[in-house]
Amino acid sequence: MRVDGRAMRTIWPLDDGAAVGIIDQTRLPHEFVVVRLETLEDAARAISDMQVRGAPLIGATAAFGMALAMRAGADDAALDGAVARLTATRPTAVNLRWALTRMRAALAPLPAARRPEAAAALACAIADEDVAINAAIGEHGLALLRQLSARKAGRLDILTHCNAGWLATVDWGTATAPIYKAHDAGLDLHVWVDETRPRNQGAALTMWELMNHGVPCTLIADNAGGHLMQQGRVDLCLVGTDRVAANGDVCNKIGTYLKALAAADNGVPFYVAAPSPSIDLSIAAGHATPIEERAAEEVTHVPGRGADGRAQLTRIAPAGARAANPAFDVTPARLVAGLITERGLTPARGESLATFGAPPH
Amino acid sequence: MRVDGRAMRTIWPLDDGAAVGIIDQTRLPHEFVVVRLETLEDAARAISDMQVRGAPLIGATAAFGMALAMRAGADDAALDGAVARLTATRPTAVNLRWALTRMRAALAPLPAARRPEAAAALACAIADEDVAINAAIGEHGLALLRQLSARKAGRLDILTHCNAGWLATVDWGTATAPIYKAHDAGLDLHVWVDETRPRNQGAALTMWELMNHGVPCTLIADNAGGHLMQQGRVDLCLVGTDRVAANGDVCNKIGTYLKALAAADNGVPFYVAAPSPSIDLSIAAGHATPIEERAAEEVTHVPGRGADGRAQLTRIAPAGARAANPAFDVTPARLVAGLITERGLTPARGESLATFGAPPH
Repeated sequence: MRVDGRAMRTIWPLDDGAAVGIIDQTRLPHEFVVVRLETLEDAARAISDMQVRGAPLIGATAAFGMALAMRAGADDAALDGAVARLTATRPTAVNLRWALTRMRAALAPLPAARRPEAAAALACAIADEDVAINAAIGEHGLALLRQLSARKAGRLDILTHCNAGWLATVDWGTATAPIYKAHDAGLDLHVWVDETRPRNQGAALTMWELMNHGVPCTLIADNAGGHLMQQGRVDLCLVGTDRVAANGDVCNKIGTYLKALAAADNGVPFYVAAPSPSIDLSIAAGHATPIEERAAEEVTHVPGRGADGRAQLTRIAPAGARAANPAFDVTPARLVAGLITERGLTPARGESLATFGAPPH
Repeated sequence: MRVDGRAMRTIWPLDDGAAVGIIDQTRLPHEFVVVRLETLEDAARAISDMQVRGAPLIGATAAFGMALAMRAGADDAALDGAVARLTATRPTAVNLRWALTRMRAALAPLPAARRPEAAAALACAIADEDVAINAAIGEHGLALLRQLSARKAGRLDILTHCNAGWLATVDWGTATAPIYKAHDAGLDLHVWVDETRPRNQGAALTMWELMNHGVPCTLIADNAGGHLMQQGRVDLCLVGTDRVAANGDVCNKIGTYLKALAAADNGVPFYVAAPSPSIDLSIAAGHATPIEERAAEEVTHVPGRGADGRAQLTRIAPAGARAANPAFDVTPARLVAGLITERGLTPARGESLATFGAPPH
């Protein structure tokens, strides 16, 4: 999508594959900084430190990380080591495992000498596929938004949680693809953006994206969505996902479940944009999804900018306060109105997912 | 309760009624600062600026504000003016109206010359009553916690939202009174403390209170509670209230409704500590409660301390981001397991409330 009028992706090859460019998302929305990744370790750290985040972008970054690794050494030990290093970065996103499995399957049969070039080509293909998948989700979601809009006089109000935007993918975003497509098509819409504590991806990233693209949006505390739904001020919820289990349970950013409960309680349809690589048929139900526990400091301290524009970390709790920080939760399939995949809409039910969830390769 | 080992209340008369002492709660948990209120305007500003907050403490502060006003002038115009000024400070808390109605009813029949002394005496009585009410809530809640604890092997995990602690009252707190009583009685318990965006009363105040008193507690993002309940890591929710409607609907800090939904979905009992002055039989149902909309800056900027210990305000959203900030929501009575009042436990149902909700005077 566009940054200051220039079309960009979130990750792209540089110098004929010798390096990879990314946007450092930890500096958004305050600074727009491009970072150059040159090694496997650079890529692994970019994922762990969340310079890149979002399940699809994590998968693409892991693929490019494999390509960087192969340039430094492409024997079987290097291949295994790179897969192991990248697998360890983030436990929840299934796209990471999916991308690494795919890279390994393609590279392992090749002689070591051919692996660097093949890895670079496949990483680019994975990135391009992600763009195509999201564009297709956007088209299917646009049709849904048109239907909902037709039923309502006036503005369509969409609530979203976390950042399932283009910054979470290679381009378009998952949950935002329908929003961008609908906005561009002239639909009158407005987005309630959950701030998404503790890492504030909604406040920092989704607001930045939507404001840059000109989509009307309003930031709210994570606590506010239920009240807005009670007041009839939300027409649908639209979120992304890190992993959909075979039974349709949706693992997504912590707090998603609470919004799904409120949506169900108020008759608001709750949709999940789910590219097929996020659908994990190997996990029967959501409770089997590993839930990452992140550092307590993410809860006790808030990063941002001071009045002088300088980066600062702000402590909001008493010194020595203990904190817990589960990063994801599981929304039961019964609360999900439907999944928007690149192949169309599907109920979040096992029998449908078996077809929709099959990875493209 | 105790601060650095010294027993304190949150509000107390100074200099034979010429002034009132309060704790500036906007500086907690980082600094413990006592502020001296000398005029009606001081008291009104202390409420508006949330140096004092929490429905019962707002009521007590309004009563002391009336007493300060009467010292400066006690004719009928001064009486009406003081009531009007204080009524305008915060729209949602019913205790404010309740305290002011009571002060006016007691003072209006008196000759102006007798009003200052009577106002001071009644303000002290209202404060003392609040302490007695909360101590009684503590005893009734203790019995409940003992029952729940007896059914469970090991630690009792309680989730609370916002600050319904002693800092929100004159002493003991409402939701925390049972917790303090149970902890002091040797029950093995632990409190999950919702940070409570956007003003972080949980992170700043409830954590500070509980840590000072030695109650085991863990701070969590508001988003995390549903996940913890799904995992069976919450035995009950216990929150305060700003106003209970005649049908049992509970108005409380924004986000309470989401926790009540999660509690219902996971079979976790959801209790509300409700002193009778918070029960407003004049409002038939919760949706009629006026919901305060506060400043957008509370959502886009987070106050706290930097690494150097200095107070700082941190912007977490893009410059120019629009934000909405409803301060309260309404939890339908159907989601409430019971109210803990100073007279005992009652279902959140109209027929019970009619007796339990009658104000003590």
